[in-house]
Amino acid sequence: MYIEKINSPEDLKKLSIDQLKVVCEEIRTIILNKVSKYGGHVGPDLGVVEVTVAMHYVFNSPVDQIVYDVSHQSFAHKILTGRRDAFINNEVSEYTNPKESPHDFFIVGHTSTSMSMCCGLMKGRDLKKDKYNVVGLIGDGALSGGEAFEGLDNFAQIGTNMIIVVNDNQWAIAENHGGIYKNLKDLRDSDGKCECNYFKALDLDYMYQPEGNDVGALIKTFQSVKDIDHPIVVHIKTLKGMGYEPAIKDEEDFHYSMPFDLKTGKPLKDLSDYQNYGDMTGKFLMNKLKYNPEMIVISSATPQVIGFTPEVRKEAGSQFIDVGIAEEHGVAFSSGLAKSGVKPVYAVYGTFLQRSFDQLSEDLCMQDNPATLLVFLTGIYGIPDQSHQCFFDIIEISNIPNMIYLAPVCMEEYFAMLEWGTNYKEHPVAIRVPTNGVHSIDMEFEKDYSQINKFKIMRKGEKVAIIAVGSFYQFGETVAKQLEDKYGIKATIINPRYLTGVDAEALDALKKDHQLVITLEDGITEGGYGEKIAGYLGTSALKVKNYGFRKEFVDRYNAADLMKANGITDVQIADDIMNLLK
Amino acid sequence: MYIEKINSPEDLKKLSIDQLKVVCEEIRTIILNKVSKYGGHVGPDLGVVEVTVAMHYVFNSPVDQIVYDVSHQSFAHKILTGRRDAFINNEVSEYTNPKESPHDFFIVGHTSTSMSMCCGLMKGRDLKKDKYNVVGLIGDGALSGGEAFEGLDNFAQIGTNMIIVVNDNQWAIAENHGGIYKNLKDLRDSDGKCECNYFKALDLDYMYQPEGNDVGALIKTFQSVKDIDHPIVVHIKTLKGMGYEPAIKDEEDFHYSMPFDLKTGKPLKDLSDYQNYGDMTGKFLMNKLKYNPEMIVISSATPQVIGFTPEVRKEAGSQFIDVGIAEEHGVAFSSGLAKSGVKPVYAVYGTFLQRSFDQLSEDLCMQDNPATLLVFLTGIYGIPDQSHQCFFDIIEISNIPNMIYLAPVCMEEYFAMLEWGTNYKEHPVAIRVPTNGVHSIDMEFEKDYSQINKFKIMRKGEKVAIIAVGSFYQFGETVAKQLEDKYGIKATIINPRYLTGVDAEALDALKKDHQLVITLEDGITEGGYGEKIAGYLGTSALKVKNYGFRKEFVDRYNAADLMKANGITDVQIADDIMNLLK
Repeated sequence: MYIEKINSPEDLKKLSIDQLKVVCEEIRTIILNKVSKYGGHVGPDLGVVEVTVAMHYVFNSPVDQIVYDVSHQSFAHKILTGRRDAFINNEVSEYTNPKESPHDFFIVGHTSTSMSMCCGLMKGRDLKKDKYNVVGLIGDGALSGGEAFEGLDNFAQIGTNMIIVVNDNQWAIAENHGGIYKNLKDLRDSDGKCECNYFKALDLDYMYQPEGNDVGALIKTFQSVKDIDHPIVVHIKTLKGMGYEPAIKDEEDFHYSMPFDLKTGKPLKDLSDYQNYGDMTGKFLMNKLKYNPEMIVISSATPQVIGFTPEVRKEAGSQFIDVGIAEEHGVAFSSGLAKSGVKPVYAVYGTFLQRSFDQLSEDLCMQDNPATLLVFLTGIYGIPDQSHQCFFDIIEISNIPNMIYLAPVCMEEYFAMLEWGTNYKEHPVAIRVPTNGVHSIDMEFEKDYSQINKFKIMRKGEKVAIIAVGSFYQFGETVAKQLEDKYGIKATIINPRYLTGVDAEALDALKKDHQLVITLEDGITEGGYGEKIAGYLGTSALKVKNYGFRKEFVDRYNAADLMKANGITDVQIADDIMNLLK
Repeated sequence: MYIEKINSPEDLKKLSIDQLKVVCEEIRTIILNKVSKYGGHVGPDLGVVEVTVAMHYVFNSPVDQIVYDVSHQSFAHKILTGRRDAFINNEVSEYTNPKESPHDFFIVGHTSTSMSMCCGLMKGRDLKKDKYNVVGLIGDGALSGGEAFEGLDNFAQIGTNMIIVVNDNQWAIAENHGGIYKNLKDLRDSDGKCECNYFKALDLDYMYQPEGNDVGALIKTFQSVKDIDHPIVVHIKTLKGMGYEPAIKDEEDFHYSMPFDLKTGKPLKDLSDYQNYGDMTGKFLMNKLKYNPEMIVISSATPQVIGFTPEVRKEAGSQFIDVGIAEEHGVAFSSGLAKSGVKPVYAVYGTFLQRSFDQLSEDLCMQDNPATLLVFLTGIYGIPDQSHQCFFDIIEISNIPNMIYLAPVCMEEYFAMLEWGTNYKEHPVAIRVPTNGVHSIDMEFEKDYSQINKFKIMRKGEKVAIIAVGSFYQFGETVAKQLEDKYGIKATIINPRYLTGVDAEALDALKKDHQLVITLEDGITEGGYGEKIAGYLGTSALKVKNYGFRKEFVDRYNAADLMKANGITDVQIADDIMNLLK
């Protein structure tokens, strides 16, 4: 075992090429043991083991600065830079983080960002009149993102040392989409020699290395570009999942996997009977597509979130489009589709929709085109890595004119809203898909949501009204129960349904027999929904207290702990209420 | 005069090529007369007169759908589609708007958007099994925007009729920046024949027309691509400012001009002595650059906002970078620069910074890199066209963790904050540059703004506290005066300074001798600053009333009228206060 003695990239530099090959296999074993046990990204990391070893062999990190795009392919990098045991024991995140190591320069979870940030590192170095290499590793899937293009397009005019490593494994999360991938194929097919070259068209120097899993070949390539005086693209062909057959056979499922059996590649838990909104939504949409040829489902590289497996995508045919990693386009494309009179349904992760604030505002809502957006994995039950946190979606989406942002509280209401939203033709609609598990409420839910901002009073009580938003609705019921059991107060429970405004009439009615309104919101309190209630009731005698999260980035949190740290527990809130009623 | 008889594109189709040439000259005269009188975009529109006439001659608008990127080059289009007199009399905006005409498909003011939206129109048409041409006109300056790339990259996979007209006038607002412009030059220089071709690298068909101001040549070109069965780029070389010498000589000043003398091209008003924050900021920054080689100023295609004329840019040398139209890159690049240890100052229009919500959050603030952003032309005194409105910046910027968003109230405070912000090394800082004219306040302003969220009590009064934000500060003083003159109440006046939080201590202190807090905010109330105050004081006896704008898009507004429509006048607010104090 060499890897046990490698505590920094320096230790790597003492080894021979043959020894480095062994190191690569040892790293692969560590990665597979770790991800099969804890879950995590598999394919992307297995593919770049040799690239990582070669970069650390040739360059002098952290003096030379190596930046990982998305950084979910930084496992080998972490193992080589003093975090081997922490990685094995799942004590560090899947992403780079300067607080973890001087070998990391950014916390990166959204993809397509490395080029612009490297451009800054490059220019900063030059202003300081310093000398070192800046190296950025970007996956081919990330090239479809507009930010990556803007970054690449800006290197030429600054034009000093910068090594852009394009890890071409021919995959995003699902297969790649976009015209640029035809060019990458042409480049691979011509051994990098075809004249029409996307990178050269951006005035960049270029070289191709087809042996992206041969550490010796990669070392020679990197040695040839080290200390170069201008930006160069090093296009490297790698195999996603390299070294692990199941991951090679099923690139999509092994992009990220839950814990799995190392021998078979089968998931440790059988989740086939597991009820979740994603799969149910996919079935609902697929059924709709069959009966409405003028409806279309859109994804930006994450079709699996709605259970659109390769088979389902095939069945949907031209009524499904994966635009690749391109969320700005996802929204503007949807707007164009709606303008043409068809019904687009864009299913997107909330955290990535952050890329589309301007498109939501200018391209969609200002046009008032009736596209439907399904916003997945928002709030505390979304993704707990800070770089994938989605605590800002209410701020981002609910304050734009014309948008109707709905927050259903259970399965029945979600599907009622989805049915309505996929037929509605007046305004853009976004639905915040619940994330707190699939709950059922035995109650009648409206079919029509066009009368905006009307609350649904779930239970009429007195003294205190609990306005419980979306995924926090069930928690709101728990608070009400605590209040009733412990203090004998039967609170009114309100499902606000619309995040885009307040129900003035319902709030005014509360003034008669209520003293306090509390709001429970699965997002940052500042700029969020609860403050709309506080703003509206600011001049009344009704008191308002907003519960939600403090404005902060929190990494790898435990949901219950984060709730507690923000004072969001049933016991705490019931006690707060009693204090405020005094 | 032919133009007087052209009330729709149909009328154009009856004319000969020679007659169309006369029409082009007539359109040019109308445009020049109009913009010299009222101000407006000059160069972009003079350049595309022939392109527009030829498109309307060949295609059958509005059955064939013609979409303008940015749409500030739609003047000839407006003149030809039944809006000639309305245009002449300045009764229609500079931008397309479906409410104005069935020949317009989108309201477009932010550039780089047309490709994605056309992609939607194209795919929507196909789903409807309809047949017509979709034509998108995009300027070369817009190609540096990531959204334009994402759109272009997505045509190939859908692959049906789509005509992408690239209007290559070799300019953005200032000169173009980005590696792609080298490729456009290579294409022009080789008569479209060079093998390395950005558009072909995105798997698009391509043709070149060098005679972009020859209506006959253009008609032949468009006829050759009409009803094509796949997407094609028609790259057309035009002359910005064509037909007007002063605009050809000075492309930058004549991109957009205030009213000017038609004979000389000189502005009607001499503004050289006019004091404004932009020019003062530019002088301040230029002086800083001289003494600090590790500081850098960044613009995204709008250097004139800080008075960075071509001469100043030359003087700044490598310490100034115009990244082109690429706001995502602007923010991420700044973050990389700050990470490297130098000080970036990014001067940007607030309306365009909307494109960078995710970059502000993930690339800058999550990293906590100390870049400085100067946010220009926000709020009601910004740009009154709905497509350039900037009413959301407080929502966008102030709710992100780690960001310090400052709102100075006068020249003295602005420069104190700017001085501090350009030296500060702990967190990202954004400054909302005042837009209500340059005001001076004879008072001492702090030099250090690192103790965040502390209010500045400008005057201690009683009963009512007026929290007046940034550009609304002077208005806040007017309200206070009205209250004192009419009702004898001397209000406390507070300058909150920080938009990113509340001063709990100061607010708590108000509880003693105040009954009411009002907030005055130059932005949308929902999700804005005032609601933070309402949220904080929700459980106290202090009443809060938030003043700001309703959530709506308003076009070509008059500031005073819009204030009045939102109940924001000194008389109204003073009366409201008296009612609330009862």
